[in-house]
Amino acid sequence: MQTNWTDKYAERTQHMKGSTIRELLKVSQHPGIISFAGGLPSPEAFPIQDIKEAYDYVLDTQGDKSVQYGTTEGYAPLREWLAEFTSKQLGVPICADNIIITHGSQQLMDLLGRIMINPGDKIMVEAPTFLGALQSWKAYQADFISVTMDDEGINIEEVEAGLKENPKFIYTIPTFQNPTGITYSLDRRKKFVDLVQNNNVIALEDNPYGYLRYSGEKETSLFKLDYDMNNNDHCDFGNFIYTSTFSKILAPGLRIAWAVAPKPVIEKLVIAKQGADLQCSTINQYVTYQLAKSGILEKHIPTIIKIYKKRRDLMLAEIEKTFPAGTKWTSPEGGLFLWVTLPEGIDTTPLLPIAVEKEKVAFVPGAPFFTNGKGTNTLRLNYSNASDENIVEGIQRLAKIIKEHI
Amino acid sequence: MQTNWTDKYAERTQHMKGSTIRELLKVSQHPGIISFAGGLPSPEAFPIQDIKEAYDYVLDTQGDKSVQYGTTEGYAPLREWLAEFTSKQLGVPICADNIIITHGSQQLMDLLGRIMINPGDKIMVEAPTFLGALQSWKAYQADFISVTMDDEGINIEEVEAGLKENPKFIYTIPTFQNPTGITYSLDRRKKFVDLVQNNNVIALEDNPYGYLRYSGEKETSLFKLDYDMNNNDHCDFGNFIYTSTFSKILAPGLRIAWAVAPKPVIEKLVIAKQGADLQCSTINQYVTYQLAKSGILEKHIPTIIKIYKKRRDLMLAEIEKTFPAGTKWTSPEGGLFLWVTLPEGIDTTPLLPIAVEKEKVAFVPGAPFFTNGKGTNTLRLNYSNASDENIVEGIQRLAKIIKEHI
Repeated sequence: MQTNWTDKYAERTQHMKGSTIRELLKVSQHPGIISFAGGLPSPEAFPIQDIKEAYDYVLDTQGDKSVQYGTTEGYAPLREWLAEFTSKQLGVPICADNIIITHGSQQLMDLLGRIMINPGDKIMVEAPTFLGALQSWKAYQADFISVTMDDEGINIEEVEAGLKENPKFIYTIPTFQNPTGITYSLDRRKKFVDLVQNNNVIALEDNPYGYLRYSGEKETSLFKLDYDMNNNDHCDFGNFIYTSTFSKILAPGLRIAWAVAPKPVIEKLVIAKQGADLQCSTINQYVTYQLAKSGILEKHIPTIIKIYKKRRDLMLAEIEKTFPAGTKWTSPEGGLFLWVTLPEGIDTTPLLPIAVEKEKVAFVPGAPFFTNGKGTNTLRLNYSNASDENIVEGIQRLAKIIKEHI
Repeated sequence: MQTNWTDKYAERTQHMKGSTIRELLKVSQHPGIISFAGGLPSPEAFPIQDIKEAYDYVLDTQGDKSVQYGTTEGYAPLREWLAEFTSKQLGVPICADNIIITHGSQQLMDLLGRIMINPGDKIMVEAPTFLGALQSWKAYQADFISVTMDDEGINIEEVEAGLKENPKFIYTIPTFQNPTGITYSLDRRKKFVDLVQNNNVIALEDNPYGYLRYSGEKETSLFKLDYDMNNNDHCDFGNFIYTSTFSKILAPGLRIAWAVAPKPVIEKLVIAKQGADLQCSTINQYVTYQLAKSGILEKHIPTIIKIYKKRRDLMLAEIEKTFPAGTKWTSPEGGLFLWVTLPEGIDTTPLLPIAVEKEKVAFVPGAPFFTNGKGTNTLRLNYSNASDENIVEGIQRLAKIIKEHI
């Protein structure tokens, strides 16, 4: 007779829930559906030929090493390249020892949870925030403190109030936030970093989208503001961990991301990663290094920006034209998402199956992005993955459904 | 001022220790050192040209999809191929829904720990056992029940005694075990599976090396014995999870492994993986599928076996010739490792730096493979990664050091 496996699950397994987005992705991939769900890059934005040449080059010249085991912290030349790249991007001196290569930023969430979270610890998050982070930290039985945002970013008074609950760390996506597309203003950034420092708390700056700006001026990272306020020495940092990824600027299928942290924290993350999965794919790190070194980002990011800017503009224009009075939406300056707020009382979760069945258009209902039960009248739209034509057509379909339910 | 990060670490972070093997790998890679440490496949055993052609084919024909996000459970055609392959290998009907693709078997250890282990839970393990598994489960604050082995496999009386301590699960590597090279006899397998079933406990059969047999007869897997005893229906299993990997039969740098489990357990592992790292590398799964489908394993495994069999034979012959009386060693029928026991009282841990400095030869001291403080007079030797000449030379050097310390 088969064992009753369920009886044997750990306590934390009771807290594990699948991601709504991942399940939705399956439905929304059916043919004929125009999907604004998911957060997929556009296939047109993948430099397939360059990627192929890089695999060829790596296998021709370093074949044996590239398919062998490697180190847990990551391929040394890639760490060095990333230290230099991120130094330049952020304006902060960063050493290779401050870098860990992770299997997507998702893994950084997991590793940070693993080294930091005791059951019942509180994590302060934006409301709404990135689902994947919530999912990682729920597995470590974290509780959450939600802080709302306005057009300028996180609500400083709420951060102040939340700090009294002694959060283990604060999680922020200050630039082209997922899911809202909101970018913190410089003033808000400074006030936030001040609070972080004065309260001796630590914080994670997640920046998967920052390299994809379509309008407005480049922002100063929280990491840099924190560094400057700390009067730091070279390669010594303050209260922030910074993470970014190649998923949105190269291709997600290679699963190469990175994080920047003080060296002792990197060491703990590396030990956590040893037990988690030993190392990232050696060959994908070699290939990413080869591409990065050859200047693919400088060449390729403008191409991506061109495609996505047009789609963002198309989506915003069509929303403007078709959405009924009483709906609100964000106008992101970059990234992949915008955020729609319908009048109070309309629940977007039951709206989704109707939209998919009747109008063959998909979005992500907003509620799961909140840890405080709010946001039932909100939804997230992705504009990077649908074609120009489908963006126009899909928004018209969505407007129709919304009008029918107002 | 920089925050004191250390104060913020989770309780479990106190239990995290780096792997001795991983640290040793760094020293033993210095030029001039003959290393029997690590568990690296031989570079001669990598089918680089086939791998290159597979990347080319995948990027030429399915470029967009192969670098895009994919599903957490794994690339569907690869899961189907693995279901068929593992069915054939084990003689048990397995469905694609019973398969999860993991980022190396190391990740399966982590995911299983995540869904099963509450702090203080006991895991029954072989003494000695695979370090990486211990490392994964220590992060979930597991305790261990150690069961010794003899030449026939795990000690059944000790398993029986250990079961009274109510282990959450039992971890076994019954074929060409790491670190000892021991293979359970059929009789021992049957008795072990009987005990597992009668005590309603669950068990993990880890089989990274089973496909690399150099002599003797193919063994029946624990998974198959359990299945047969259960009188199972198609694709319904009993008390075992089975895991294996492409790391030793193709290449470790792609980080593609798999596990077989009852469908509801796979579903929990998939949710755990979502929070851990979202998915394995899409392109590496496409490439592995392409290679597997084209028959690389049938073609390539005999090549690997030929190389490693010769090295095993060379190492055993040289040990026979040179090791002093009072030393014992295993004679594995396959896999990558053999195990040496020196006379009681010789501690191999302080012997390692002497061997590296004086004789430029490296091994892994046995103590870390034990959870019960035993094994200080043991050591592990890997014979897959050194060249034929270095195996002979390295064993002579090692014999010299051992003789000096007896």
